Amino acid sequence: MPKKPDQSYHMSADEFRRWGHAVIDWIADYHERIESFPVLSQAQPGDVRASLPAQPPAHGEDFSAVLADLDRVILPGVTHWQSPNFLAYFPSNASGPAILGELLSAGIGVQGMLWATSPACTELESHVLDWLIDMLGLPGHFKSTTDGGGVIQDSASSATLCALLAARERATGLDANEHGCDRRLVVYTSLQAHSSIEKAVKIAGLGKQALRLVDTDEHHAMKPGRLAEAIEADRAAGKVPCLVVATVGTTSSHAVDPLPAIGKICREHGIWLHIDAAMAGTAALCPEFRTIHHGVELADSYCFNPHKWMFTNFDCNAFYVAERAALIRALSILPEYLRNQATESGAVFDYRDWQIPLGRRFRALKLWMVIRHYGIEGLQHHVRRHVALAQQFADWVRDDDRFEVAAPVPLNLVCFRHLGGDAINQTLMDRLNQSGHLYLSHTRLDGKFILRLCVGQTKTEAHHVERAWQRIRDVAGTVEKEQNT
Amino acid sequence: MPKKPDQSYHMSADEFRRWGHAVIDWIADYHERIESFPVLSQAQPGDVRASLPAQPPAHGEDFSAVLADLDRVILPGVTHWQSPNFLAYFPSNASGPAILGELLSAGIGVQGMLWATSPACTELESHVLDWLIDMLGLPGHFKSTTDGGGVIQDSASSATLCALLAARERATGLDANEHGCDRRLVVYTSLQAHSSIEKAVKIAGLGKQALRLVDTDEHHAMKPGRLAEAIEADRAAGKVPCLVVATVGTTSSHAVDPLPAIGKICREHGIWLHIDAAMAGTAALCPEFRTIHHGVELADSYCFNPHKWMFTNFDCNAFYVAERAALIRALSILPEYLRNQATESGAVFDYRDWQIPLGRRFRALKLWMVIRHYGIEGLQHHVRRHVALAQQFADWVRDDDRFEVAAPVPLNLVCFRHLGGDAINQTLMDRLNQSGHLYLSHTRLDGKFILRLCVGQTKTEAHHVERAWQRIRDVAGTVEKEQNT
Repeated sequence: MPKKPDQSYHMSADEFRRWGHAVIDWIADYHERIESFPVLSQAQPGDVRASLPAQPPAHGEDFSAVLADLDRVILPGVTHWQSPNFLAYFPSNASGPAILGELLSAGIGVQGMLWATSPACTELESHVLDWLIDMLGLPGHFKSTTDGGGVIQDSASSATLCALLAARERATGLDANEHGCDRRLVVYTSLQAHSSIEKAVKIAGLGKQALRLVDTDEHHAMKPGRLAEAIEADRAAGKVPCLVVATVGTTSSHAVDPLPAIGKICREHGIWLHIDAAMAGTAALCPEFRTIHHGVELADSYCFNPHKWMFTNFDCNAFYVAERAALIRALSILPEYLRNQATESGAVFDYRDWQIPLGRRFRALKLWMVIRHYGIEGLQHHVRRHVALAQQFADWVRDDDRFEVAAPVPLNLVCFRHLGGDAINQTLMDRLNQSGHLYLSHTRLDGKFILRLCVGQTKTEAHHVERAWQRIRDVAGTVEKEQNT
Repeated sequence: MPKKPDQSYHMSADEFRRWGHAVIDWIADYHERIESFPVLSQAQPGDVRASLPAQPPAHGEDFSAVLADLDRVILPGVTHWQSPNFLAYFPSNASGPAILGELLSAGIGVQGMLWATSPACTELESHVLDWLIDMLGLPGHFKSTTDGGGVIQDSASSATLCALLAARERATGLDANEHGCDRRLVVYTSLQAHSSIEKAVKIAGLGKQALRLVDTDEHHAMKPGRLAEAIEADRAAGKVPCLVVATVGTTSSHAVDPLPAIGKICREHGIWLHIDAAMAGTAALCPEFRTIHHGVELADSYCFNPHKWMFTNFDCNAFYVAERAALIRALSILPEYLRNQATESGAVFDYRDWQIPLGRRFRALKLWMVIRHYGIEGLQHHVRRHVALAQQFADWVRDDDRFEVAAPVPLNLVCFRHLGGDAINQTLMDRLNQSGHLYLSHTRLDGKFILRLCVGQTKTEAHHVERAWQRIRDVAGTVEKEQNT
């Protein structure tokens, strides 16, 4: 029914309360019934669009119609990342306090591009990121109270790009910013590093040929000797090494690059070292897992994603630099319409100069709320539980002579495979995922098709992992029989 | 009080309902009392951090403590972008349905990096962005049902960077992606264009010297003749022009570059034309304002920000390309762990290849909810109202012989100044902003300090603009007297 033109069309405060409560209840219900949905959406290409009207509405609709369509149109097309049976990729977990923090960020609706455009947005962010340094046992020189500092990026991809830009400018004395990249710049990472590093190298104008993919050892971690050789060969050829990206917990297999040796090489050659600990970094909440960060004090920059494994909904990447001036020099531009006294005083951070976009929302709120709700103790509890469940799963795999564990399991990701070869593993994964009971993903290691099971969803409990293993064995039995007939 | 270790630490469904309702009510209350706060935060550097504990909490806290700190710690450090008296910069407005859409996005918590990782996230986005094409009267070749398509970016800055990367690769036959930027590439925009263009040129490795700032006319719009001359001079010098960025509604003064003439030049020279209509684009909801888009059919890419003036909270930039294959070629990398049947079928969009980061949240939800709540009619109503209020304000300025309007007022931004010179205008702005009653910003045009008043906040009504003008005149009177004594 069209609204009359004398109405404001806005949702009134009372309507907002009413529909807001309804949405909160819808989300609570969704999480309570989430295991009733197939984890992997069974939608086919075009299904969702076919359920939507071709034309936008000329007149406003009642919000109840929108809520009804969440169930009718949206949920059938959702892969349920928040399901406890979501064991694919890396998780992107969330929690009650994080969701409410995101809601508050939207409700307050400030822009944090400059300190002056909302001081609390900047200062809470600096403060909470300093807390995380203590919580994870990271080096003190990343703190905002030193020459370093932390900032929230949308993703590890963007953090890598920012690290590369800072490194590029440090290596060229700001010449790349002024005159453009020259083709002598080179970047190093391992063969197992994330695709975002190649993407950053392309975006930043170095080109794919500037990327050296250093060989890995039998555990899929970078070989520092090969890194040193590559750097020396490049230097001898007149190249300018500007960045090494080391990974703590690779996406394929959770390999941890040997940071002390890599860091030493970077120091010797004056090369910026960035460490990407996207999922694994969260484990450092627990002192017993901090070995993964051994050598991190040699890094020029570091990031991990609270939006993966720390119950803080996407997007929330915590990115730290040891020398913030280098980052700011690479990214700062100050047009007249953004000039202000606070910026010119030098007493504040303007986070627009620490990132690619200009605008930014109040993402520190959700991180603050998660940390306060759980406390260090609560976060440690869940990290330990996830790691223990993954280790238990790995033991089950080792004890079944049809399967093998395909890579070391330092934390919560298990790479494993059926010994029957690639085809059987592919079929096994497809069947399991199509069943809707659970969702796994895959990778290739040493040329072989490998299954990945990652325990990191907020509500994943022992019985979910137990049932996953039972289903994997059952489906494997069926597939084996089919292959033998 | 520390929680016991046998608890799960998670917020239960019942607690989520309880605290969720409380947060909704807090937001409703905040918007009802928003005019009681000084618009510009009066916090001094360090004030917010001084109110926060130095150490993170070892044990979880009750959510009521967090909510209490919103009022105690956060609000004093907030500049109230959602206040109807916020008349600075460009707005970053929001609305009830948008806030609830953001809440739902956080509650559902999917990753939309691939179609396969949540089909609804991708398909709703393509669909709603196609709706916007009809709603704004944009060219049909931007639709996802043709060779083009739309995608949500976090900001116009990122859209510009993506356009530049696509243009760079088209101009170099993917050579920049492969071998790195060469220093022959050049980019053109006007002297009045946004700082994000210089930032993109630096990020993408072209360097600031590759950026040509084309002269503007007396209305601060690009001179196409000068553009043509610059391109020809560069070609003659062996340079490779790859991108022109034209602006519909510059940040300083809302100047509209002459798109038909610029587009014609770009076509003649085979140069990618990107149009940045960050705030002004929303005006095209109303047929009578679509003259701003005259010539947009000549663009290779276009963006505007529903998060500025279309009641959809940040971040939500709508970015369109006429040839999506060019964008995807520039940004696509497919590692093994992201391979899937839907991607390989070619029947779906994987939006990770349309943007800088890999991960992405379900931002289409809020846009869908805004469009359905308001309908085209409701959105048009508010755009017309804002434009009428700005025009009224401009008339008042013109009628006061102490002031002048300093640039054309095509839509909802008024540039004006007191005729007493820069110092009086700076003092006037500082006094007004420090008063907390309203918030203006400034720019420089033709070397002069200019005040900017933009009418675009969701709840800005006639009486807010009237009172703003009254206060401006009153404070001007006081400052004039001080200067005369």
